[in-house]
Amino acid sequence: MQTELSTQLGVEHAVFGFTPFPAVAAAISRAGGFGVLGAVRYTAPDDLRRDLDWIEAHVDGKPYGLDVVMPAKKVEGVSEADVEAMIPEGHRDFVRDTLAKYGVPELAEGEAAGWRITGWMEQVARSQLDVAFDYPIRLLANALGSPPPDVVSRAHEHGVLVAALAGSARHARKHQQAGIDIVVAQGYEAGGHTGEIASMVLTPEVVEAVDPLPVLAAGGIGSGRQAAAALALGAQGVWLGSVWLTTAEADLHSPALTRKLLAAGSGDTVRSRALTGKPARQLRTEWTDAWDDPQGPGTLPMPLQGLLVAEAVSRIQKHEVDPLLGTPVGQIVGRMNEVRSVQAVFDDLTRGFEQAVDRVNRVAGRSGQ
Amino acid sequence: MQTELSTQLGVEHAVFGFTPFPAVAAAISRAGGFGVLGAVRYTAPDDLRRDLDWIEAHVDGKPYGLDVVMPAKKVEGVSEADVEAMIPEGHRDFVRDTLAKYGVPELAEGEAAGWRITGWMEQVARSQLDVAFDYPIRLLANALGSPPPDVVSRAHEHGVLVAALAGSARHARKHQQAGIDIVVAQGYEAGGHTGEIASMVLTPEVVEAVDPLPVLAAGGIGSGRQAAAALALGAQGVWLGSVWLTTAEADLHSPALTRKLLAAGSGDTVRSRALTGKPARQLRTEWTDAWDDPQGPGTLPMPLQGLLVAEAVSRIQKHEVDPLLGTPVGQIVGRMNEVRSVQAVFDDLTRGFEQAVDRVNRVAGRSGQ
Repeated sequence: MQTELSTQLGVEHAVFGFTPFPAVAAAISRAGGFGVLGAVRYTAPDDLRRDLDWIEAHVDGKPYGLDVVMPAKKVEGVSEADVEAMIPEGHRDFVRDTLAKYGVPELAEGEAAGWRITGWMEQVARSQLDVAFDYPIRLLANALGSPPPDVVSRAHEHGVLVAALAGSARHARKHQQAGIDIVVAQGYEAGGHTGEIASMVLTPEVVEAVDPLPVLAAGGIGSGRQAAAALALGAQGVWLGSVWLTTAEADLHSPALTRKLLAAGSGDTVRSRALTGKPARQLRTEWTDAWDDPQGPGTLPMPLQGLLVAEAVSRIQKHEVDPLLGTPVGQIVGRMNEVRSVQAVFDDLTRGFEQAVDRVNRVAGRSGQ
Repeated sequence: MQTELSTQLGVEHAVFGFTPFPAVAAAISRAGGFGVLGAVRYTAPDDLRRDLDWIEAHVDGKPYGLDVVMPAKKVEGVSEADVEAMIPEGHRDFVRDTLAKYGVPELAEGEAAGWRITGWMEQVARSQLDVAFDYPIRLLANALGSPPPDVVSRAHEHGVLVAALAGSARHARKHQQAGIDIVVAQGYEAGGHTGEIASMVLTPEVVEAVDPLPVLAAGGIGSGRQAAAALALGAQGVWLGSVWLTTAEADLHSPALTRKLLAAGSGDTVRSRALTGKPARQLRTEWTDAWDDPQGPGTLPMPLQGLLVAEAVSRIQKHEVDPLLGTPVGQIVGRMNEVRSVQAVFDDLTRGFEQAVDRVNRVAGRSGQ
């Protein structure tokens, strides 16, 4: 599965794997794809340094990248406490009451309350970049808008390609104007923050909008036939996130969550503002239902919602409170039905891709395949 | 673009075109695809007979089919008046007030109030079938669930294949158990009634669920690269509806509506219950916004909503009241930017398909294409 972009990056297959787990990222790169480590959970630069050291030691010299969360808009002159004060008391009561209703225990003294997407993440992301550029990363992806111009320049000085996620052609063109190198077209069916436009429509639209920039298709891809479809749509590669969550190398720290992912069907996700205040696809749970219920208080805008629920989500995850337990994941969760190694997922993907190419050639009457 | 199904039906390309317009259906079949005439708007059997006669005279002996709307559930012992009486007065007021707000004129004396999906459509559909089986139709599709067993048998006695739309694998398996021959997997991005699962995920899921039944992919398809993607996903053909609405042969009776379709982007549709009470993708308008507004009365369940708004929708269409004017259409509307002949759409589709196959072969390293 070779495109100009995969050749440029020196990988065997144009398969980009986004994951928060260093062991998964390294395994993806070792398998011939391109592992991208999600950095959002690293609040301390030294933790990131430790995990990049680990990847370096386990990636067999194969290329890999980093995904940061750097908001396009800066928030200046407003403290986190100022924003906390903007959260209505009724919403805090709703969180408290919902946790009480399900008997969710407190966190232990000193336990971290989990990551949260705030307007202050740029500082965190910049400190991550100070670390990352010490390593031979080949790609820097940003999950929230285009990175600031100085970050794009700095990446280019280090020979690092810059990618950004887009849910519409308009959004993709803004990235192009910001000088980024690769657009990840994130379809409606994808896990995490998504727009309304499905991959079948979004991918070719973005490909045409930013031509000649390479586009990676994200959303709904977990098999070789889906990869072949994305490449037929004009993508230069596929960007997979969800499918790695149930690999043997992933470390969800929650057997209950792994069970829920393995059991879920493609209809068991919801695009909800419950997690961050912006629509993000995730497992549908009684927690998302409570936030999406018209009888409830409703969600707050980003970054308020993320601040409001950060501790609650950590408590739910830590104590594996089943009816409330969820995670960002795409509709492809319906095909994640057993724990497999990253290599096994990869083998399936490349074999399925070849079969899909055979099928398309038969349909096209090109029998000499 | 040849599959087992297209060979079985004797068409050159596995492209199925659904349309309410006889001229479009005939042109699709003449171009080498398979035209499927939507029968929902024919309340008088003689009107259907007249249009099937027209198709027979213009299809050059090529095969074609018919799409009916036959609800799976019968409603017995309840009259249309009984159901009308179930509509709350507040909802009638809301319709009246909204029409008044936009100054929507009345229909002229004797003008029909448009079609509506009700529990009584089975009688209408059966009278349509009595007509249809006098013609050499090759396919009978049903847009609402599986057709009743006697209808399936009758079709098979006439050598007519039966297709049914499904928005989930579970739904598709029910069709298979009902003895239908073809499943149309209708993705989230499609126009009209849709589920939540996007084509990229839905198509392979349905293909595996009903194997060895042939599956047609619907939703998001309007170009050759999208057709190639659908075939890579395992479909035996593609089912296109929206893309024909802006062809030269289509007769929308509304230049304003055609203009809106040509101008709309892929983000300008909404999946709303405003039209029938079930979620159906359509142009987003101030009419759908009014029904989807949490401050409004909200929509009623099928068949109440359809009965409630039938006359209002006819008035809006008849008088081309721009802010309220809409139609069922899929996200592919973003690529419908000029009026073209059916043949031109077809030529683009087949050329784009060949290019997409070339692209996929290059990616797969099969250079001898």
